[in-house]
Amino acid sequence: MKVYFTFEPREDLRKPLVEEFPQMEFIFEQRITEDVLRDAQVLVTYGEDLDEEKIAVAEKLEWIFVASAGVEKMPAQAIADRGIYVSNVRGIHKKPMAESVLAHILSLKRGLPSIYEQQARSEWNKRIRLTELNGSTALIMGPGAIGQEIGRILQAFEVHTIGINSSGEMASYMNETFTMQDLMEHLPKADIVISMLPSTEKTKGLLTREHFAAMKDNAIFMNFGRGDLVDETILVEALTQKLIAHAVLDVYMEEPLPPHSPLWKMDNVTVSPHLSSHSSRYVERSLEIFKPNLLKWAAGERELENEVNILRGY
Amino acid sequence: MKVYFTFEPREDLRKPLVEEFPQMEFIFEQRITEDVLRDAQVLVTYGEDLDEEKIAVAEKLEWIFVASAGVEKMPAQAIADRGIYVSNVRGIHKKPMAESVLAHILSLKRGLPSIYEQQARSEWNKRIRLTELNGSTALIMGPGAIGQEIGRILQAFEVHTIGINSSGEMASYMNETFTMQDLMEHLPKADIVISMLPSTEKTKGLLTREHFAAMKDNAIFMNFGRGDLVDETILVEALTQKLIAHAVLDVYMEEPLPPHSPLWKMDNVTVSPHLSSHSSRYVERSLEIFKPNLLKWAAGERELENEVNILRGY
Repeated sequence: MKVYFTFEPREDLRKPLVEEFPQMEFIFEQRITEDVLRDAQVLVTYGEDLDEEKIAVAEKLEWIFVASAGVEKMPAQAIADRGIYVSNVRGIHKKPMAESVLAHILSLKRGLPSIYEQQARSEWNKRIRLTELNGSTALIMGPGAIGQEIGRILQAFEVHTIGINSSGEMASYMNETFTMQDLMEHLPKADIVISMLPSTEKTKGLLTREHFAAMKDNAIFMNFGRGDLVDETILVEALTQKLIAHAVLDVYMEEPLPPHSPLWKMDNVTVSPHLSSHSSRYVERSLEIFKPNLLKWAAGERELENEVNILRGY
Repeated sequence: MKVYFTFEPREDLRKPLVEEFPQMEFIFEQRITEDVLRDAQVLVTYGEDLDEEKIAVAEKLEWIFVASAGVEKMPAQAIADRGIYVSNVRGIHKKPMAESVLAHILSLKRGLPSIYEQQARSEWNKRIRLTELNGSTALIMGPGAIGQEIGRILQAFEVHTIGINSSGEMASYMNETFTMQDLMEHLPKADIVISMLPSTEKTKGLLTREHFAAMKDNAIFMNFGRGDLVDETILVEALTQKLIAHAVLDVYMEEPLPPHSPLWKMDNVTVSPHLSSHSSRYVERSLEIFKPNLLKWAAGERELENEVNILRGY
């Protein structure tokens, strides 16, 4: 069986893979070539190098493993017509993202911004106000795979977790789960409000001034979902009026965040440049997902992890 | 029964206490007065306002609750001679300290220092090298109450924890525990080396250049125990020669850290001004420990939590 990678993993990741599957023929290239594609049964790609002609050339192709969460740049109809199996690395962002969220929360609670600033001035000053995470309540809007991973770790810190989703169905690692209709009722309980919501018709502009007014005045608001959840004018106003204590933002209405945005200079805002899911271990993680599935595939199994309905797009 | 506090908890903490024990008479003062002391059976103090004369005046005193970990400023012999029961708030630093340690680790892994610096320059730059905590190995020197709490949380982050103590006896939340003699053998495995060791004859100058040479060159070294664990000249040299990647320090040979110390200006050092155990919830936590013990005391029990042998000093 020929397995074709259209990117080149580092030697220390490639070698164990090749050794683990001696019966397979692996080809690693930093690009896609039709000669190799013609004979490949398995294609491992970031999902941006395919088109209808390439699918036509890839006569023996049975499985495309996409080392990315998005498949929107792939020729969906051509792939579906041929019945080629598609799976991806859904969930790969879960751990790095949860660690970023926890890093920001703990940094604020334990005074790291002040510690760093004082060090820059060679200043020894123990009078920084430090608080604690344990015993707090966190409200997580959109407790999907990433939100649940955040919930799992927050619970280890003895934080009470409230999930808010569209159905109100119980989500893992949430002490309680409610529907979006109940949001206003539960916001006043939360010390930390975290949004992991995607951008949909329902989430655009979902948060209004009233929501921020309902939050505790010492609450931390974190947006790690999508920037259109709240109009930034409303957010800036809420922060200026100290309706909440701090906002940590990884996503924005416009990205890159424009240089003139007031958010940059607000001392109760952390501007993270939409990188909280990044990780130097991305390829390593992709291979961790790929390998057990390649084993299944070689054994004739056709129900793999993270199957993608290519026409639906996820 | 008269309970005498020689400090004044905030109203929101004092009120529930008084309400919970209607049978007790509480007196709260920001100082110690002999008139009140004369009738008190229970004294709640930070442990710095007592001397032999006061103990002599306190004829009815049966229990001293020290809202501090140290009892070294108390008149030990006079207290022991009278058979006055002493207990303290041992363990109160566990949670804030563990949260500080985790804050620093996650901050470095998830690029917070760079994120903060870029924000100060209104700079949008996603090319920060981010790594992950999960899957790492942490070596904890001195896995006592605080070290075990750090271990508990690290394990929630899927970190392998190695404890190093004097006996090699298994400590909670350590995947493995070894003796100090085996330190050199296990240092090369650790991505994070954390010392929580106190200052004793055995720990002074314990870490040498060879220890840092044995660590991974991408290791983070954290000293949250006592500053005399390692000669700072050795530490500075190890960091300059990149034997390790970063040091996070909360304790120093001399405190405050002198302005001329090279540690202040090193970009692979975090200087925290010995405050990692601080918390605005200190009094709240002390009362959390005090209340169940007061209940026991009132019921005639004489085996309380955190009993202190005043002559031994802990």
